[in-house]
Amino acid sequence: MNKETSILVVGTVALDTLANPCGRAAEVVGGSAVYFAYAASCFAPVRLASIIGSDFPEASLRDLESRGVDTAGLVRAEGKTFRWSGSYGKDLKEASTLSVELNVISDFEPDLPEHYRETPWVFLANIDPRVQLSVLRQTSGPRTVVCDTMNFWIENRREDLLRLLKEVDILILNDEEVRLLTGEQHLLLAGRKALKLGPGTVVVKKGEHGALLYTADGCLCCVPAYPTTRILDPTGAGDSFGGGFTGYLAEKGELSEENLRRAVVCGMATASFTVESFGVEALRQATRDGIAERFTGIRRLVSF
Amino acid sequence: MNKETSILVVGTVALDTLANPCGRAAEVVGGSAVYFAYAASCFAPVRLASIIGSDFPEASLRDLESRGVDTAGLVRAEGKTFRWSGSYGKDLKEASTLSVELNVISDFEPDLPEHYRETPWVFLANIDPRVQLSVLRQTSGPRTVVCDTMNFWIENRREDLLRLLKEVDILILNDEEVRLLTGEQHLLLAGRKALKLGPGTVVVKKGEHGALLYTADGCLCCVPAYPTTRILDPTGAGDSFGGGFTGYLAEKGELSEENLRRAVVCGMATASFTVESFGVEALRQATRDGIAERFTGIRRLVSF
Repeated sequence: MNKETSILVVGTVALDTLANPCGRAAEVVGGSAVYFAYAASCFAPVRLASIIGSDFPEASLRDLESRGVDTAGLVRAEGKTFRWSGSYGKDLKEASTLSVELNVISDFEPDLPEHYRETPWVFLANIDPRVQLSVLRQTSGPRTVVCDTMNFWIENRREDLLRLLKEVDILILNDEEVRLLTGEQHLLLAGRKALKLGPGTVVVKKGEHGALLYTADGCLCCVPAYPTTRILDPTGAGDSFGGGFTGYLAEKGELSEENLRRAVVCGMATASFTVESFGVEALRQATRDGIAERFTGIRRLVSF
Repeated sequence: MNKETSILVVGTVALDTLANPCGRAAEVVGGSAVYFAYAASCFAPVRLASIIGSDFPEASLRDLESRGVDTAGLVRAEGKTFRWSGSYGKDLKEASTLSVELNVISDFEPDLPEHYRETPWVFLANIDPRVQLSVLRQTSGPRTVVCDTMNFWIENRREDLLRLLKEVDILILNDEEVRLLTGEQHLLLAGRKALKLGPGTVVVKKGEHGALLYTADGCLCCVPAYPTTRILDPTGAGDSFGGGFTGYLAEKGELSEENLRRAVVCGMATASFTVESFGVEALRQATRDGIAERFTGIRRLVSF
């Protein structure tokens, strides 16, 4: 493992039950940290911090490890793994949560393995901001911190989230979340307002409409989604975006403006695999070369 | 006037009453043909075919003529000009029609002036497809036909519209309209399905998310909106897109793939002026140079 490019991720590991007009899938392996790890491991070694119950399939752990995902920081607890069940309407846009069973994740108090603590890239995937903050406080040394979140935390853990954002370098969230966070309807203004909360860079995901990149210089970049027509289920697309985005930055090793722009393209290219199946199946098949091919496809779309 | 680059447009000329959370404006000059004419006249001479009542402000006609808009085909009828009143919610997306007074437009039977009939570019702006078809039948010679429409005609004049589309080269419509027209929810598939109705090229406008260009080769191009933050009212943005798009093609004189891609960018750049005021005020200030500047701004957004 090359220490310099490693990425530490904390987030959920889950068993998801998904339903939408294209079909359904019961108790498939998912969670923000899992989608992130599959995506980012196409680019760089990943160190996973999370918690699972005794019912989590061993084969899935072996699969992650075979891709260079370190699971030393994955706590195996007595009890059941975190479960989420959600459904989508025919536009496959917003998920409605049908049920949440926190199970072992409700007691998760991260205690990072020693060798995790100086990882140069830290991704705080969607999970309680208190857990994100706890992980961040256990890391040290020069590091770049990328953070994802969701509407639930913006509404119910606002204070914790705002405290966390002051220590974050790059914030990733979707259009509705940035509006909720800033109270500003116009996306361009909302993106700028989010920068004032701490992060030097903000990425706003817009689903099928791509993503926007903001830095102190304004709205820097607008990247379309990769035009896949095989959309089965969008669960995990946002986490996979984070994985492709952070993976590319870790691979390049430097936060230049050019790398940030291309990282957004890599994020979109990576996420386009995820939506082509329920669960991680299609994302598992993605390779660094396959992502590069879709990167070129996106670039072709905006050649004029 | 250079006959080769002229554009014939048929559409509505209206007095609009607009309201949204940013403000309101009463009886301002508007209509699909007017927005189109202001936009396209930045690129090429425009020949306007429509109908107005005796209450239409003379100064607005002079203003159009001063920009190279030929009004010989604009019928001056006894009675009142077509009126439309609409409002928008805080996202400024979909207009709700509050009232429509057809007035003189209900009797409009176009009879094109002789010199209009061999115009090389024909734009059928949003109006009853029967009127669009009548105008098209009165033209002859080699010409490129670009067509806009709206949900009302897709729902209430479907047969006429489908007949018209067989004679159209380029169809422009928005995301909801292409879904309504084709019955397909996924935009990429909807765009492809629309191609089967006749047009060799389809452009799907997505408001703040830009526009997509489809040809027989698939989804060719994805252009973001110009990132203006001074959005006052979106009325006429779609018609102005059509004007910038068709104007650029007329200026270049050739339907190459490269010109089509750049025409979409010009359309987005032109429309970005329109939304910066109620009515045509901001669009009136747009110049060919100003549009070129925003073209460059859009290109910068997608440089990676």
